[in-house]
Amino acid sequence: MSDKLTIGEVYRAQMELRDIARHPKIIGPTNLSDKCQIYLKPENLQHTGAFKLRGAAYKISQLTPEEKAKGVIACSAGNHAQGVALSATRNGIKSLICLPQGAPISKIEATKRLGAEVCLVPGVYDDAYAKALQLRDEHGYTFVHPFNDPLVIAGQGTIGLEVLEEMPDVEAIVVPVGGGGLVAGIAFAVKTLRPDIKVYGVQAAGAASMVESVHKGERVHLDSVHTIADGIAVKEPGDLTFELCSEYVDEMVAVTDDEIAGAILALIEKQKLVAEGAGAAAVAAAMYGHIPVDGKKVVCIVSGGNIDVNILNRVIARGLAKNGRTCQFELEVDDKPGVLSSVLKIVADQGGNILSVNHERVAAATQVNACVLHLELETLDASHIERIRKALADAGFPVKEN
Amino acid sequence: MSDKLTIGEVYRAQMELRDIARHPKIIGPTNLSDKCQIYLKPENLQHTGAFKLRGAAYKISQLTPEEKAKGVIACSAGNHAQGVALSATRNGIKSLICLPQGAPISKIEATKRLGAEVCLVPGVYDDAYAKALQLRDEHGYTFVHPFNDPLVIAGQGTIGLEVLEEMPDVEAIVVPVGGGGLVAGIAFAVKTLRPDIKVYGVQAAGAASMVESVHKGERVHLDSVHTIADGIAVKEPGDLTFELCSEYVDEMVAVTDDEIAGAILALIEKQKLVAEGAGAAAVAAAMYGHIPVDGKKVVCIVSGGNIDVNILNRVIARGLAKNGRTCQFELEVDDKPGVLSSVLKIVADQGGNILSVNHERVAAATQVNACVLHLELETLDASHIERIRKALADAGFPVKEN
Repeated sequence: MSDKLTIGEVYRAQMELRDIARHPKIIGPTNLSDKCQIYLKPENLQHTGAFKLRGAAYKISQLTPEEKAKGVIACSAGNHAQGVALSATRNGIKSLICLPQGAPISKIEATKRLGAEVCLVPGVYDDAYAKALQLRDEHGYTFVHPFNDPLVIAGQGTIGLEVLEEMPDVEAIVVPVGGGGLVAGIAFAVKTLRPDIKVYGVQAAGAASMVESVHKGERVHLDSVHTIADGIAVKEPGDLTFELCSEYVDEMVAVTDDEIAGAILALIEKQKLVAEGAGAAAVAAAMYGHIPVDGKKVVCIVSGGNIDVNILNRVIARGLAKNGRTCQFELEVDDKPGVLSSVLKIVADQGGNILSVNHERVAAATQVNACVLHLELETLDASHIERIRKALADAGFPVKEN
Repeated sequence: MSDKLTIGEVYRAQMELRDIARHPKIIGPTNLSDKCQIYLKPENLQHTGAFKLRGAAYKISQLTPEEKAKGVIACSAGNHAQGVALSATRNGIKSLICLPQGAPISKIEATKRLGAEVCLVPGVYDDAYAKALQLRDEHGYTFVHPFNDPLVIAGQGTIGLEVLEEMPDVEAIVVPVGGGGLVAGIAFAVKTLRPDIKVYGVQAAGAASMVESVHKGERVHLDSVHTIADGIAVKEPGDLTFELCSEYVDEMVAVTDDEIAGAILALIEKQKLVAEGAGAAAVAAAMYGHIPVDGKKVVCIVSGGNIDVNILNRVIARGLAKNGRTCQFELEVDDKPGVLSSVLKIVADQGGNILSVNHERVAAATQVNACVLHLELETLDASHIERIRKALADAGFPVKEN
């Protein structure tokens, strides 16, 4: 199938996308790593907040007048839905998006606002997918696949062309991978034009279907996926994307959810950019040393920024804990006047900032006359936490080990 | 004093800043308002995360060799400190930053990492300021004022030049105002070159010293300031910035902290950009209708993005509440089996998503056999909240009014 994809197709996509897509400039060099020079291609600043618009818009631009008259259908709870909706609406085409019924209301509303009709399907993603295919067959809609389509892949590949044009001295490009459309497009374009540049793919460890597939040499189907990077939680790669990844991607690696949270937090604090889990995966791989890029100029694709703000709050908390910037202590202390203030003074003397204190008499205490004290502290790093822990222990207030 | 500021000085600053400052491209048009076309000049993507670098770097570039040999001193707990530190270090100059002792450890560390020496002064900002002047007199350091200096103002004015070059059809420019250096520089440059373009200044309502000063026609000193926009919490404008603002700024308005929180949230969700309170103030003024820009092309300066992530979490929560995206209900219900599940079913039937439930027997209940139920819900908007409230009341579960 991959013979359908040519470099000419990617250039044609670039021409078609000139007006509908933004072309966010590369940011950097950043201070995200001491070991390599990380640059960012911020596709989170793309319209709809993600690169997905590119592939969907190019696919739709290539439909025949008859196909356009009938409209398009897609199945997605996320960025692909919004990319299809915006592209269709801009072209005056009807779009129908099938979503599993439990999809977040914010995503449903965002898709509707872009002009799509939404069909909520009972069950999970697979049920919504089956429903979309059924409606396609009944009504003659064109199905826009989120990744396994040469035109969609060509659209995503335009990001590769932009990186080469803007930064010809790039040495490695790092790309988040779900179904593999983005990395397949970028790797195909880059390796065709500049085989000397390395291309790495990054998945979440809890949804590493492409990593496993490439290592095994055949497509692997995962029974379940768990990651905060919902945009790349895909159970099985497509046949076309698998083939392209096997041929053109230098290495495929996985990062943990804690590393992704750490990268999201670093992007917020150091670069003032909001990335979703998938969007931060490539940065996480470079920051935490999963790819051999020491001393190199590396462009990480920040693929999207559509993170639910309630989840963002939890991710920030997790990222702070991972980087030793907050910590939780539990101590058992005597239930008598002055003890709490003594403990707090020790923490203050060590420069720890109290975020919350919970001091209660509970049955869980080992002594009848003891209280359990929970402290949440703002700290500098892991060694600072150890200093506070030691000062408390030296004063007779040992912190419980978790 | 303002005769020291010439448009030639601003152009000279632009030349000097070519290599040390980033020149973030204007983003837009955005979907931040239905009434006007909001474009963003994202100075949060500037090195050190704020525009302050520009003024500090230009000031330092103009020092004599003797002054450079002695080094510079500044007083700031925030963006100005980092701007001075980076500019000095890049020029191989020693910098000393005086900070009040209670300054956040994250800011102290950030300043040190940029190569400055930090002097922690007991007391508040005014004490640190006095100490800085004393050290200047003792050691011959050059004091770099955060705003009331024509060279600093010329540096900030380069933003005005960039906006005119990149978007000559802009109709209004909206600028956050603390001490007034940024708005003075931009207004001076823009009005000198293009008097047809409107320039608006925006302060936080809890720290509106420049708003009051301009309205009164003389500098006003506020006894205290309270706002989440700590970067523009200034008690009194400078004499030079006051004079320039009075002459060149079309209107000076104030926005509330809730509006600032709403703008921060909108920038995160819709534009994937992290702004600090000060950085979002101009956007808030345009979003919430404080300036007469309906139907116009408006560039809002997003002046900085250095927000403490712990505060960011609280701001997100506040912004969600302001926009009707979350709500808190308190109900008094009978203490018997099945009541809680009935209430939750009504909420679910109305499409409300439960974030937290707290159901407790407390003395505060008006009836001995009653419980107090606190619900935190995720909702679509204010009218959705009203629908849920009405459905609960219709079923005999009236929600307490706050």
